[in-house]
Amino acid sequence: MQKYDHIPRATIQRLATYMQVLETMKKDNIKITSSEPLATACDVNASQVRKDLAYFGEFGVRGVGYYVDYLLDAIKDCLHANREWRTALIGVGNLGRALLNHQEFNRRGIRIVGAFDCDPFKIGEVAYGLEIFCSKRLQEKVPELGIELGIITTPPERAQRAADQLIEAGVKGILNFSSARIVTPNHVYIEYVDFFHQIYSLTFNISTKN
Amino acid sequence: MQKYDHIPRATIQRLATYMQVLETMKKDNIKITSSEPLATACDVNASQVRKDLAYFGEFGVRGVGYYVDYLLDAIKDCLHANREWRTALIGVGNLGRALLNHQEFNRRGIRIVGAFDCDPFKIGEVAYGLEIFCSKRLQEKVPELGIELGIITTPPERAQRAADQLIEAGVKGILNFSSARIVTPNHVYIEYVDFFHQIYSLTFNISTKN
Repeated sequence: MQKYDHIPRATIQRLATYMQVLETMKKDNIKITSSEPLATACDVNASQVRKDLAYFGEFGVRGVGYYVDYLLDAIKDCLHANREWRTALIGVGNLGRALLNHQEFNRRGIRIVGAFDCDPFKIGEVAYGLEIFCSKRLQEKVPELGIELGIITTPPERAQRAADQLIEAGVKGILNFSSARIVTPNHVYIEYVDFFHQIYSLTFNISTKN
Repeated sequence: MQKYDHIPRATIQRLATYMQVLETMKKDNIKITSSEPLATACDVNASQVRKDLAYFGEFGVRGVGYYVDYLLDAIKDCLHANREWRTALIGVGNLGRALLNHQEFNRRGIRIVGAFDCDPFKIGEVAYGLEIFCSKRLQEKVPELGIELGIITTPPERAQRAADQLIEAGVKGILNFSSARIVTPNHVYIEYVDFFHQIYSLTFNISTKN
């Protein structure tokens, strides 16, 4: 158990946004910041930011603010975003290919080192430098390639099977882009990327607040 | 102002998940359900589900449960997910193309009717049935095509300009897939799709809880 084990989910998500804002500042050569720009980016108030940052000690310097570099490193440490995570992608369709070619993954240490599909026409093909393997070979490839995370980009009806194969092969966390809900054992973490949540926030707000 | 104007953001996101679960039930010909499966899907307790559903009146039938069809229609009404939303996509790279070909948009009434890019080599090309227009033509095309939403899939450094063009042309809401934070006026809603939030939830949980 580490010291950060009770950070709420909503805080984790804000930390990820703070990280993004701080990275932009670092690129722009800004050395010191305050809670306000971080608050604005997350649509919360400054006291919420201070509370979030208090989870891992006091980084603010009274009368000065936060040191961008120091805070950025602390957040990365906390989220374990400062190391490489070897990752498998299952489902090499349009979305899968777009993700295989998405530079942001590599830049952030998410290294997709294996691509899998169950379509015999795709198996053996090379997509963005990766040979596509049959999903049945996850069992062998996950330990061989040191894979810890899985990304599912299959059609919804194949998502549970893909998850089962990933879990059996030993991955610890799954990012699911398909629209299917997936059942996992307690020791395997699952996260959903479903941008219809965001779309419905838009359609709701546009329709009720204008 | 409508009756649903004070639903919190977290509730909206759960409603979107309930909708997904109920749609699966409907497909499986399940007529009646309870708060439990909805609670499980959102990782909340049943009383939270009942509280969420209470925002738009009482749908539960004592001793029976919820009628799947009726509840699904009520949630769709609430989120304004029961009509077509004409949408522009800006940035026809890998991710943009994957989204243009993503069947789920059409199925959910998000109709991408215009594709835009600023790369002269792409302008005029046809991608999934849509001619790619120069982004400068948004001003003319948004009203002509009755576009209300914009999807940004440009590189981060071009995202703000794409947003400005969409806003000037009159869109009411923007879904941003680029990693850049974007500034919009108050009357234009913006949502971010940043799956690194989810990835960092995974890396945090794997590292701290195992």
